[in-house]
Amino acid sequence: MTDTVVVSADAARRAAVAILVARGVPAADAEVVARNLVAADLRGIDTHGLFCLPEYANAVADGRINANPEISVSRSLPWALRIDGDNGLGPLVAERAMDAVLEAVESHGIAVAAVRRSNHYGAAAVYIERAAHAGCIALASANAIAMVAPTGAKARFFGTNPIAAVVPAGKYPPFTLDMATSDGALRKVRKALAEGRPIPLGWATDKDGVPTTDPAAAIDGMLLPFGGAKGSGLAYLMDIFTGVLNGGLISADVRNNFTNHDRPSGNGHFFLAFKVEAFLDPAEFAERMESQIARLHALPTLPGVAQVRYPGERVAQVSAERMAGGIPYPKRIVDDLVSLGGGAELGLGSI
Amino acid sequence: MTDTVVVSADAARRAAVAILVARGVPAADAEVVARNLVAADLRGIDTHGLFCLPEYANAVADGRINANPEISVSRSLPWALRIDGDNGLGPLVAERAMDAVLEAVESHGIAVAAVRRSNHYGAAAVYIERAAHAGCIALASANAIAMVAPTGAKARFFGTNPIAAVVPAGKYPPFTLDMATSDGALRKVRKALAEGRPIPLGWATDKDGVPTTDPAAAIDGMLLPFGGAKGSGLAYLMDIFTGVLNGGLISADVRNNFTNHDRPSGNGHFFLAFKVEAFLDPAEFAERMESQIARLHALPTLPGVAQVRYPGERVAQVSAERMAGGIPYPKRIVDDLVSLGGGAELGLGSI
Repeated sequence: MTDTVVVSADAARRAAVAILVARGVPAADAEVVARNLVAADLRGIDTHGLFCLPEYANAVADGRINANPEISVSRSLPWALRIDGDNGLGPLVAERAMDAVLEAVESHGIAVAAVRRSNHYGAAAVYIERAAHAGCIALASANAIAMVAPTGAKARFFGTNPIAAVVPAGKYPPFTLDMATSDGALRKVRKALAEGRPIPLGWATDKDGVPTTDPAAAIDGMLLPFGGAKGSGLAYLMDIFTGVLNGGLISADVRNNFTNHDRPSGNGHFFLAFKVEAFLDPAEFAERMESQIARLHALPTLPGVAQVRYPGERVAQVSAERMAGGIPYPKRIVDDLVSLGGGAELGLGSI
Repeated sequence: MTDTVVVSADAARRAAVAILVARGVPAADAEVVARNLVAADLRGIDTHGLFCLPEYANAVADGRINANPEISVSRSLPWALRIDGDNGLGPLVAERAMDAVLEAVESHGIAVAAVRRSNHYGAAAVYIERAAHAGCIALASANAIAMVAPTGAKARFFGTNPIAAVVPAGKYPPFTLDMATSDGALRKVRKALAEGRPIPLGWATDKDGVPTTDPAAAIDGMLLPFGGAKGSGLAYLMDIFTGVLNGGLISADVRNNFTNHDRPSGNGHFFLAFKVEAFLDPAEFAERMESQIARLHALPTLPGVAQVRYPGERVAQVSAERMAGGIPYPKRIVDDLVSLGGGAELGLGSI
């Protein structure tokens, strides 16, 4: 397996900030991007953290992503936010969108944001976890370059269009769902390709629609929706939320941050949040969540399973461990960060 | 295969009304229940239409479902509806909930309803299709008796908790998703049992967690979530929406309309709708939906697939065919309707 280098979350964040600032990103904005990417690494979503930074940094350096976007928020109704990301870094646009959502939620109890002209933003759950801490149930999605074949098609049409959701859970870490609507995430396929490993059967087909375990053939071919036609339907719904409703681009027209030399990528995002207290006293809601989780924990398990977990439970454990003990980055990612100029912050100097 | 009897939608509806009215349901309410169940049959969702009526009618006759509920709607915020179904028939409670949602949406652009103390309501999409015709994107779910094992568990904990969604699609019939978060719906397992057919492998396990194709063993055992851990996570999220948020019962505590002789079943529902025009001019939205669908239709297909369809497309075709040519009911369902006293309305007299 790949060698790893353990880096503290703080050092990782500082390195990411230095790399982005050196390419013209204002320090405060770089801090937002770095924090959100490292938050994904802390959770163990290694494909959506600093793994993405070289791509982001190069796109900023090349002017393909706007280092100084004017992100605008307009609204026709107090809860309905239309946000134009001005081709800014995805994590920055997503954070600003959630700022606006949470502000609207404080006044109106509910808000929906349809975001266009953004870029790839990493892990969806990172942005909405703030909403859980503000007493909200929240949903998020994002589109991405078309890699997923709708059921019945021999062509890419949907992005890996995640569904993310958070729910405050009282004394427990928030219930947190964050799933690609494809069976495997594109970045997991890329990681397998980089590491020379096969991908599980069922994730993808080659360009002729034949199932494959070869990550290179998958990248030339198509990913499959998770759960067959049901997952395909959910991927379509997320494509509407993130590409039709916002007046932006659907996945079929979104470009790749790696290769979008002709025009901005045009990713879209969707966020929805509402206050639990609109329905129940938050203390009662917390008690009800805790009771449901306690009953889940007490269920008899299949062989090899110590305890049934709720979505977000493992991620919270990993996050606490990595916050205390550092993040084990693959050496390849650390090498990339050093070569981009983050070596001093990592305590590793230059290559 | 089962013999079928073709019945017009009008006759089917009149038979259902007669059966419910004879058991004490007010005529206007019986009309609502009959219309929504027959709407499921029109769409080809045969397991969620009049297939359910004998169960509903017997529960009303036994007093296990309230024939004259006082359905109450309260709100802490203009968009947040807390609805108590007073143990009324599920389709009636769901229709009244959507009445309240659509009224709130006309004033505020968005509404969410958390419904408790209801009963099984048939097919979720039927209730929210009205929202699509009112220019809304809408979501719905419902809980149900625990039949589904969370990933890792050897026990039932979630209902088949559907996810339903509608989106207006311009000149096309609405985009309509309506999927159980279990791999197979419980009523499909019951139908297979009634017809002496096996169920597909992957739908269920026996009570020891061993995969089975025997519908009887499945009903004694557990259904599986669709798409593995991802579907399990979605089932959990729907359980929160339909059983925690509403102050009612989670699936683990919901009873079966067939067997709930000790207390009301206590099913919960969830509805969310918002106006498309809060984000885009409806004509522009329609054009964007039409363009996306036209592009989907033009995708190259896998062998044996004539054209890629969007969710709701087949249902709309079936509905038009059955509206024109009648609904092909299995003879067993027609026999049940006749024995319950609907023979005259079906033109079949009594048995």
